[in-house]
Amino acid sequence: MPDRRTEILRAATRLIARRGVRGLRVGELAAEAGVSTSLIYYHFTDRAGILRETLEFIGERADRYTAEPEPGAPADDPCSELAQALLLELQDSAEVRENSTAWGELRASAVFESRLREDLARATHTWVHEIAGLLGRAHPFGTAPAHAASAERLTALLEGLSIRWLSGSLPLDRARSLLDEAIGTEIAGWRA
Amino acid sequence: MPDRRTEILRAATRLIARRGVRGLRVGELAAEAGVSTSLIYYHFTDRAGILRETLEFIGERADRYTAEPEPGAPADDPCSELAQALLLELQDSAEVRENSTAWGELRASAVFESRLREDLARATHTWVHEIAGLLGRAHPFGTAPAHAASAERLTALLEGLSIRWLSGSLPLDRARSLLDEAIGTEIAGWRA
Repeated sequence: MPDRRTEILRAATRLIARRGVRGLRVGELAAEAGVSTSLIYYHFTDRAGILRETLEFIGERADRYTAEPEPGAPADDPCSELAQALLLELQDSAEVRENSTAWGELRASAVFESRLREDLARATHTWVHEIAGLLGRAHPFGTAPAHAASAERLTALLEGLSIRWLSGSLPLDRARSLLDEAIGTEIAGWRA
Repeated sequence: MPDRRTEILRAATRLIARRGVRGLRVGELAAEAGVSTSLIYYHFTDRAGILRETLEFIGERADRYTAEPEPGAPADDPCSELAQALLLELQDSAEVRENSTAWGELRASAVFESRLREDLARATHTWVHEIAGLLGRAHPFGTAPAHAASAERLTALLEGLSIRWLSGSLPLDRARSLLDEAIGTEIAGWRA
């Protein structure tokens, strides 16, 4: 059973995905999580603390659902692991939709709320670093800066495709195939 | 001198870039534009009409500033025209910053406001179509679906890089060089 802290972070992600981050109030979060506001302050100190840990929670949740092998995928294959880590962010499941909506909303809010930026930059670097590591394992013939640049591009592309999908400008299947081709093109670029 | 209608759209873009779209009220827009609310209703009917035409205004403004040749760029060269049309969306000027902030905010808001989606999808298609046209002129050896897919990827990547820049997760120069490399990689992909 998840602990109270995790329950609060799950409720924060749900609320951000449902109504956005800019209206998020601690009282409302307490009601959504079924806890007292004082318990929230005990765990997270303030609103900035809630948002910081929600960013981490979203990242860890994405790590989990992108690491579940797709049916038919070969085990322990670094190339499949890389493709999955990116493509499984584009899935029509309630969890992925909620997680991606909340992430996109925190990204968009940081344009207006400067206090969010440092935590968001840190979460972005963690993600880029993970993808660069997978690229290095899958295609060790590239250089480390080439892996890092590809990881920056692929994750930025994924964010761009994800919000087009969530905002109704791009069907999910099309977003997946565009991303899949981009992975191939990045890798082919190192061989040239 | 711009007409009243254009003044209102300019004020709407400015307000969305400053405080977001979700708090945008017609009374506030009237005050920002220095006109009466009835004049706004006369020109745009309702809030949805304002947002629809603001999307068009943002697109037209971007068409203008991405078509101004950079110092030293050769005239009438389709390859430079293509690179510029994308790279000049990443410029540290007040106008580009305001335009990109407002576009990203309308994109993010459409996740929550379903009424915005059709207009946003239309504006996205217009942009993708323009970039696909430039790709076709610059590199006529590709097929039309390849041009369209590259245009979808490059514009989605640009949206992802732009919001990372605006939210403080990526320096502007780095965003530009990542995009520049992606343009080269897309084009090299057709030659393979």
